[in-house]
Amino acid sequence: MSDPRPIGVFDSGLGGLTAVRELFQTLPGESVVYFGDTARLPYGSKSRETVTRFSLEIAAFLVRHDVKCLLVACNTSSAHALDTLSARLEIPVIGVIEPAVKAALAASPRGRIGVIGTLGTVGSGAYTHAIAAHRPDAAVVSMACPLFVPLIEEGWLAHDVTRSVAEEYLARLKSEQLETLILGCTHYPLIAPLLGDLMGPQVRLIDSGAEAARATAELLRASDLLAPGPARHQFYVSDEPRNFERMAQSFLGRPIPPTTVVDQTDLPWFERIPTP
Amino acid sequence: MSDPRPIGVFDSGLGGLTAVRELFQTLPGESVVYFGDTARLPYGSKSRETVTRFSLEIAAFLVRHDVKCLLVACNTSSAHALDTLSARLEIPVIGVIEPAVKAALAASPRGRIGVIGTLGTVGSGAYTHAIAAHRPDAAVVSMACPLFVPLIEEGWLAHDVTRSVAEEYLARLKSEQLETLILGCTHYPLIAPLLGDLMGPQVRLIDSGAEAARATAELLRASDLLAPGPARHQFYVSDEPRNFERMAQSFLGRPIPPTTVVDQTDLPWFERIPTP
Repeated sequence: MSDPRPIGVFDSGLGGLTAVRELFQTLPGESVVYFGDTARLPYGSKSRETVTRFSLEIAAFLVRHDVKCLLVACNTSSAHALDTLSARLEIPVIGVIEPAVKAALAASPRGRIGVIGTLGTVGSGAYTHAIAAHRPDAAVVSMACPLFVPLIEEGWLAHDVTRSVAEEYLARLKSEQLETLILGCTHYPLIAPLLGDLMGPQVRLIDSGAEAARATAELLRASDLLAPGPARHQFYVSDEPRNFERMAQSFLGRPIPPTTVVDQTDLPWFERIPTP
Repeated sequence: MSDPRPIGVFDSGLGGLTAVRELFQTLPGESVVYFGDTARLPYGSKSRETVTRFSLEIAAFLVRHDVKCLLVACNTSSAHALDTLSARLEIPVIGVIEPAVKAALAASPRGRIGVIGTLGTVGSGAYTHAIAAHRPDAAVVSMACPLFVPLIEEGWLAHDVTRSVAEEYLARLKSEQLETLILGCTHYPLIAPLLGDLMGPQVRLIDSGAEAARATAELLRASDLLAPGPARHQFYVSDEPRNFERMAQSFLGRPIPPTTVVDQTDLPWFERIPTP
């Protein structure tokens, strides 16, 4: 059996493209429908209620595009809205947190795990709870790093200022004898070289977006729902696409097809999602 | 004659409170209805179309609160949406750009003016055009400073990192023999001490929010529309108010009354604004 329907992926903006890059590599036959909420980004400092509402609206948009599963490629959405999305949608919903936690646990024999992310992701405690559910004796050290996303979007990936900011944010984590550091925001892989340099070679970095993409591949394989190909991708954003298209190449490693702007007045469709 | 109706003020978030602070000082008898679009902030990197749509929605919300005039206390909204707002509303609309330009010209005998702001404000050319309309031979040097708002919201007002970022952004401006520097974003007064230190005492800083508040006071005085008092203020935000209330004191210099969260599904009312 195969399922030619596309995989739905969304993020507050560009970061989710790091997950798409992994999907392209792992599952070259799969089609992707991507939504970046560029008119309302960032989600990182916004409340659970608002992030959940935005996430439901986008999920409804993607469901209307007949996606076979939904990859929530935004850590803040995964932290705040994954339970609600799973309860409201009839298709499988994959967040970034559980796959990242499993990868971190597998690479942390002593259970010493660091987590960096937005204020929303770290403040929610979602990573801490998910790790404790698997391994209650794990030592989890979290740090919100709200300046990383603006610095990455400014393009200062290897800038001295970005290094200074990272040194300040990571200072406490560096003294914790961590085995792994979860990059709990899909923007952060773009500064992985800097983060790896500061943390040292003994700390393995976990790319939450890539892990979620691999978990999606496993799910589709296990359910025999892989697409026969050829892939046909679609990219949607809620604000005008120039900046998105320009930066997409950094995240994806290759140009993207033309991006479509969604009229935001078309977004609030979540009331129409059938609730199981 | 007097007019007891409140003054409507909006911003993408907190920055507009620097204008409210000036209103409180200049016009202690006036009531203010403030709206901060905290669910959709920041506006600085978003398109003209999106910023205009958001601004119209908020203006309609404030018109429903029977405001006698509208102070657009956001530079990005003023740059992108002021013409549309003025055309669509029947009440006077005051933006931040024209008042700041007048103050800068008055303090710049040689016409050498710097402008710093968001990508949207600087990219729009609104300040350059407004200055040229008054003084075509003025020399205007603009610089987008997209990291200032995140640094201010992180509370790093006097941090070494903020100084390094400011040194980088202001490097070109420092060699231009400027007489004034327009703080073309209502967040920036919070780092005025740092900016003043870097630019030197010969460069006068122009606070666009405070200038717009003084222009509002002049308008109300000239039209004989001042309120008899006592003032009664209302604060609305589109996301949950905890962070807003916590940071408001930095911007306003005093605590604010309890803040009300507006359901965003109630916002798109702009179709109902009568077009003159």
